[in-house]
Amino acid sequence: MEQVEIPDQEPSQEKRKRMSSALEIDCPGDLRECLRNASNDGYHFIIINAVHPRYSRDLLSKNAPHVISRTDRILTGTDWNRLIVGKLTSINVDSETNHVRNYSKAILNQELGFASHLGLPAVIIRLHQRNNTNLAGILMEKLAGSNVNFQVWIQLPMIHPTCFSPICSKSEEEDVWEWWNDLRTLCHYDKRLGLMLELPDSQHIPSELEIKRWMGEPVKVLQIKTSLFLTNHYNQPVLSRNHQEIISKMLNLDVQYVIKGPKLHGKTYKPYCAYINYLGKKLFKNDAVTEFVQGCEDFLQNPLQPLTENLETLVYEVFEKDQVKYVEYQRAIQKALEDLPLSIIIPVIMVVGAGRGPLVQACLNASYILQRKVKIYAVEKNPYAINTLEDRVQNEWHGQVILVKDDMRRYKPPEEADILVSELLGSFGDNELSPECLDGAQRFLKKTGISIPVSYTSYLAPLQSSKIYNEIKNSKTADKTTESLYETPYIIHLVNYYQIAVSQPLFKFEHPNWNEVIDNDRYGKLRFPVLQNCVLTGFAGYFETVLYKDVILSINPQTYSVGMVSWFPIVFPLPEPVQVSKGETIEVAFWRSQNEEKVWYQWCLLSPHKGSIINPNGRSYFIKKH
Amino acid sequence: MEQVEIPDQEPSQEKRKRMSSALEIDCPGDLRECLRNASNDGYHFIIINAVHPRYSRDLLSKNAPHVISRTDRILTGTDWNRLIVGKLTSINVDSETNHVRNYSKAILNQELGFASHLGLPAVIIRLHQRNNTNLAGILMEKLAGSNVNFQVWIQLPMIHPTCFSPICSKSEEEDVWEWWNDLRTLCHYDKRLGLMLELPDSQHIPSELEIKRWMGEPVKVLQIKTSLFLTNHYNQPVLSRNHQEIISKMLNLDVQYVIKGPKLHGKTYKPYCAYINYLGKKLFKNDAVTEFVQGCEDFLQNPLQPLTENLETLVYEVFEKDQVKYVEYQRAIQKALEDLPLSIIIPVIMVVGAGRGPLVQACLNASYILQRKVKIYAVEKNPYAINTLEDRVQNEWHGQVILVKDDMRRYKPPEEADILVSELLGSFGDNELSPECLDGAQRFLKKTGISIPVSYTSYLAPLQSSKIYNEIKNSKTADKTTESLYETPYIIHLVNYYQIAVSQPLFKFEHPNWNEVIDNDRYGKLRFPVLQNCVLTGFAGYFETVLYKDVILSINPQTYSVGMVSWFPIVFPLPEPVQVSKGETIEVAFWRSQNEEKVWYQWCLLSPHKGSIINPNGRSYFIKKH
Repeated sequence: MEQVEIPDQEPSQEKRKRMSSALEIDCPGDLRECLRNASNDGYHFIIINAVHPRYSRDLLSKNAPHVISRTDRILTGTDWNRLIVGKLTSINVDSETNHVRNYSKAILNQELGFASHLGLPAVIIRLHQRNNTNLAGILMEKLAGSNVNFQVWIQLPMIHPTCFSPICSKSEEEDVWEWWNDLRTLCHYDKRLGLMLELPDSQHIPSELEIKRWMGEPVKVLQIKTSLFLTNHYNQPVLSRNHQEIISKMLNLDVQYVIKGPKLHGKTYKPYCAYINYLGKKLFKNDAVTEFVQGCEDFLQNPLQPLTENLETLVYEVFEKDQVKYVEYQRAIQKALEDLPLSIIIPVIMVVGAGRGPLVQACLNASYILQRKVKIYAVEKNPYAINTLEDRVQNEWHGQVILVKDDMRRYKPPEEADILVSELLGSFGDNELSPECLDGAQRFLKKTGISIPVSYTSYLAPLQSSKIYNEIKNSKTADKTTESLYETPYIIHLVNYYQIAVSQPLFKFEHPNWNEVIDNDRYGKLRFPVLQNCVLTGFAGYFETVLYKDVILSINPQTYSVGMVSWFPIVFPLPEPVQVSKGETIEVAFWRSQNEEKVWYQWCLLSPHKGSIINPNGRSYFIKKH
Repeated sequence: MEQVEIPDQEPSQEKRKRMSSALEIDCPGDLRECLRNASNDGYHFIIINAVHPRYSRDLLSKNAPHVISRTDRILTGTDWNRLIVGKLTSINVDSETNHVRNYSKAILNQELGFASHLGLPAVIIRLHQRNNTNLAGILMEKLAGSNVNFQVWIQLPMIHPTCFSPICSKSEEEDVWEWWNDLRTLCHYDKRLGLMLELPDSQHIPSELEIKRWMGEPVKVLQIKTSLFLTNHYNQPVLSRNHQEIISKMLNLDVQYVIKGPKLHGKTYKPYCAYINYLGKKLFKNDAVTEFVQGCEDFLQNPLQPLTENLETLVYEVFEKDQVKYVEYQRAIQKALEDLPLSIIIPVIMVVGAGRGPLVQACLNASYILQRKVKIYAVEKNPYAINTLEDRVQNEWHGQVILVKDDMRRYKPPEEADILVSELLGSFGDNELSPECLDGAQRFLKKTGISIPVSYTSYLAPLQSSKIYNEIKNSKTADKTTESLYETPYIIHLVNYYQIAVSQPLFKFEHPNWNEVIDNDRYGKLRFPVLQNCVLTGFAGYFETVLYKDVILSINPQTYSVGMVSWFPIVFPLPEPVQVSKGETIEVAFWRSQNEEKVWYQWCLLSPHKGSIINPNGRSYFIKKH
């Protein structure tokens, strides 16, 4: 916070996705005019050959000529840096022929150097074969240097044409994802490496599984040939439903769209750009959730520790905005109230961890709907939330609520409750110590009393996301060890990811728990099938909770509570990505452990490769009990 | 670079400084209305008491009440976070009386906790005495916690009223800068600590020296009482010339202005805000330099290494924009050409390190003005700059220039030059190895030939800037040692600083240098007087160069070439700030040393306290020769 400022206006709530599009022109005769036209037609940047092919280059001779390409003074440095992406000459640095390989390497190095000189934001390299080992070596030599600021976009068809050929048998050699995977693995998942995918024709769309896997990759650009466009009744270019479905999936990834090919729908390229913008409006799902999560995409957050650190106004406010959650809570409370025998004249409800009061309000609503009087205790330990509650007791709730400033694990109430209501769940269910808190709080619940929630279960699924792998790696600061980075779970709104298999239940907790000895430690193993070759980078965690009877809340993808925004998934990382193959099984072991001071998770990959135990004894990440 | 985009419009070139202003209202009856009015009157935020004094608090009793202040639900979390700054209750945590001290501490902790709960961007604490040790302790306890995001603005008069009292003798106890200096030293110059200065009345303006020292401090806010405003012919509030001069100095620091006191010029506070905005227009110096340096204020840059790393298009372009520099070069070349005997029919000029050609152009201009034919060699090693030069040779210079792609230290020319022109100077003169390069290049200069530049001298001055101290400390990344951070010089557009004494010459180099043995090592000591108590955080480096005869370029403050933008000062840090007192002498030793591979500087504080030698053997920072 350097400047405190009243905003001039509210951020505009545009009901469309802003689409960034580019025009690909191999060798424009007049670069400035080409740029002007593209801009007039609505494009945001252009893609050209990094080096003009007019300039012949015999780089291996001693008297290499001075001239490489057009002079950089045609455009300003800022324009080169913002408006031009350079395609590199198609050469083969992995040729078996020495001369071809050496010449190709000289060309590639010169073009990378020139791109760096111009300050281009990105260069494009198209792959033509699976073996790109020498290319990876040359790229990493360059990227490891201090003054390289461009991205490298690897251009590939979404699917190899031979996959649909009746005479070719499909082999791994022709799975272009493998080409990409080999290259980026050699380049250690460098985040400057992105994908430029070519949209296939609508008869040759990859399978849904393959598309999902692409969505777990850093796709930066989708190239669309003008010949793929159909013509509608108004003679305007449109894309088929198949194509629209692919683009609709790309929307979340903020992919940029590149138009390439002859003008087939008029005298300019404007209609294509206009259509892409139209798709941004048509395909964009603008609901409460979208608005809520904007800006959080793949962003790492540390799990809250509400037990030991007081929440702040802004955090309370964000939680209170979730309508779905509190409507369900109110339904659960209402059902529980209905189930209480009428012999109980005034049921006692205790809200433990009342915060700024949303659950108290839900209780009052249920009581009003049923016209059944209740007595509510609101227990809260945060003195600043108590300040807010006191105001609501006086001005909104008119004394119907008894305010208690205490920790629910210590509080000694004057009577026992019929219903104990709490919202202590984290993204992984028990990870904010709901079990330990409710075990303490059930002291003041009648033996016949009801806990809302009744139970909760954590779920786990294997995950591919080089984006998140890089986010974690790059979150290293001077005061953190590398180990601690991946021995910590993160709360993440997952966008650029591929969930490798369906999630499975892991740990379950039920309340009240009248067992003589309560054991909240857990241990479990899960086995997931691998349906196609991919890269395992960690595990996504979710939860489902039964509030009461059939009223549930869930962030587990299979049972998701539509419209609920309070929780993002939790991600448990692995130290390094693991290549997994179709037919193999991913097996993982998970522990929930504790000592006097803290609770922690440990996890460990068992198969297809055995890993070490991550976060033993909670050495990097733990949840404080006090 | 995540998104490549053509900008929708050019950034607006507004000819005024954007002023941020606030209204200070102790306890508004209706906070929302107060905020609405302030916003309507043009203010960007408001300052209120963090805790409403209506709520009495006996924090030391066992039954402390629940209610602290108004409910946080009056405003949204975003509003608390952007529009409200909280003044803390004036208490004395440094009292000698136990009860007062304990009570004060309880109040302070509660208010800091509440400010944190609300998510306020800043809190204000006014100092009333020099001893604030316990205050510093409590503040640091809070600031060292992980979840404190607010700034702490320390409120002080710019000058203590007793300084102008005829009956008080001025002592250090009453120098409010010392109050601040003690506190922030205890708080280890924490960058979250800023200053809120009170504008004094126009009869009691501090001396220029004192104001300069404030300008080297993190001044965040200037408080202006409404009673300080004069009334002009139109009944509008205006400030006196004295006051305007102070504000004009604050403009560069992006200070925010707070209006406080009764409305004396109408029914609203609008006229004061409007006048502050008017000052932003009136006092703002909008020249080429201002535009050029915008956004670079106190920003750390690493010195270029043009000898071993090729410059890029954008860097060349920035340098070429400096009109003052090339006009002076052209004047120098013209004078040198005039001094060449007419017996030399076609003088040979060699431009070594021609870049994209601005010095070649200057030579051609001089030749054209004098109508004297010249033969120009342009020597450049960067192949991508050669690409540009070749285009200019063919299309602009029509073959008048001979292009040589080689390192000037290796090149073997077919003839000797009459004039050798180069621009190899860094911010400290010799720090980009101009001496070593020109010693090599003078091989092809006639013994009677002229070097442009003829000589250059580095200058040094002691510096106070906790801003830059913090910038350096916070630039620590995972791959740097703490030691390497302050053993490296930085190129910085100095803004929030105080130059403790006038700069003095350090090292001088002359060209050509026909000595039998050329020694470019240097060693020197400088002594600077201290005119008032202050804090030494490092040394600022500058240079002056004689291009030829009376044509000079300088970034040394005393002789600055007005309008020249190519160089920012260089800063040599110290590991920790050093308190220096009026009358003491700052003495520093400086080395320029080298071995086969590299050149480096070492430096060392000798007085008032002896420090260790910084960067011995160039272990952290050096300039590569190859």
